[in-house]
Amino acid sequence: MNLVLLEEHDRVDSATFALTEGRAAHIHHVLKARVGQEIRVGMIDGPLGLGTIESLPPGAVTLRCAFEPEPPPRPRVDLLLALPRPKVMRRLWAQLASLGVGQIILTNAERVERPYFDSHVLDEATYRPLLIEGLQQARDTRLPAISIHRQFKVLVEDHLDRLSPSGSRVVADPSGITPLAAAAGHAAGERVLLAVGPEGGWNAFELALLQAHRFQLAGLGPRTLRVDTACIALLSILHAWMANAD
Amino acid sequence: MNLVLLEEHDRVDSATFALTEGRAAHIHHVLKARVGQEIRVGMIDGPLGLGTIESLPPGAVTLRCAFEPEPPPRPRVDLLLALPRPKVMRRLWAQLASLGVGQIILTNAERVERPYFDSHVLDEATYRPLLIEGLQQARDTRLPAISIHRQFKVLVEDHLDRLSPSGSRVVADPSGITPLAAAAGHAAGERVLLAVGPEGGWNAFELALLQAHRFQLAGLGPRTLRVDTACIALLSILHAWMANAD
Repeated sequence: MNLVLLEEHDRVDSATFALTEGRAAHIHHVLKARVGQEIRVGMIDGPLGLGTIESLPPGAVTLRCAFEPEPPPRPRVDLLLALPRPKVMRRLWAQLASLGVGQIILTNAERVERPYFDSHVLDEATYRPLLIEGLQQARDTRLPAISIHRQFKVLVEDHLDRLSPSGSRVVADPSGITPLAAAAGHAAGERVLLAVGPEGGWNAFELALLQAHRFQLAGLGPRTLRVDTACIALLSILHAWMANAD
Repeated sequence: MNLVLLEEHDRVDSATFALTEGRAAHIHHVLKARVGQEIRVGMIDGPLGLGTIESLPPGAVTLRCAFEPEPPPRPRVDLLLALPRPKVMRRLWAQLASLGVGQIILTNAERVERPYFDSHVLDEATYRPLLIEGLQQARDTRLPAISIHRQFKVLVEDHLDRLSPSGSRVVADPSGITPLAAAAGHAAGERVLLAVGPEGGWNAFELALLQAHRFQLAGLGPRTLRVDTACIALLSILHAWMANAD
């Protein structure tokens, strides 16, 4: 935890926040903080700041916080991901938040097994703490927007232009030969929507539908990666390239 | 499993290989292969090829194989990694092999806990099957060379020039501001040795010792990543950049 994220319900008065349980335990036992010490804080979906420890009763912490004027920018990459199996998705939530994604659009596909959609890993009560863990790791405050779609065709044809109205779109597939950066065709400041398929890939219909809706086909070289490794690899390459292009 | 890796002890005669257990079960139940069908195979540390299924008795498979003349090239990136905690290291073995590393040099550091070195995750009997799993995922045959070093200073001063005699060296650290690609200072065909520190980072002595031994300092932007996410991110960025620079 490289940042302690605060929620509105932690607020006692305008600048004072009271924490208990996990975050208090972390400040007591991992940071081993003392009264008067400053720690990095952030408001969820709000600004970063510094919190001065005012009191440290057992199991609790009171912080007096000063925040930056603006929240950090929202990460410029969005992810359209064919829902992986629950064990993999559980591990991905924090990793995706730590790498930085503006939104995560989860979808069905032919090679996604239907029962995956009934998993607890798609309950907000499960994934929100994992996303927050990732943000606290990466010192970010911007909670990715999450949406879950059981009908791939309806998502792509009817909802995607609302969820992701502008920017470039790229789909990574073993059949692609264009490098990711070239396929994303960056214009400075633009958003990129990255589509990652299921283990076994998109089927021909799905890939054609994505390409008919502005997705450029990109490859990731000759190595076939597991979906979770591929997500981390592709997001990292996009972020490194966007940082370099700015 | 996108490739079935074969070992010398699977060989029955010059072109015939007999498999049992895990790989046979995979061919029977996942690939649902039939006699006469061709599947992708590879010799560990040897060439890729195709295997024609000759017989499929219960629990076993016999393959007649034809191989390419040359093994695939050894991945051009090597990894010097401060040993992460065993649970993380166990997960990393297959992911590192799938991304492609020529060798993995595991080291102690101030912020590595000593008991990590006594974990079974460092036994060849544990990690070799995990590395093979990663190679089979990525369709590679090149098993990374593994070495384990309990003394960081001795490793860097006395052994590193033998383990990694040529090529560029780069150390990723939050204090770095140079992008990874610029720090690696690529010359076509050269190897890159990437150093990744423990959770909490290298200490000042360790970072200075690495820089005194030809490691260029590189940053990965403002986000602090968990060690396993950082390894995947950094290796992916290096590979994408090397593929592009060739």
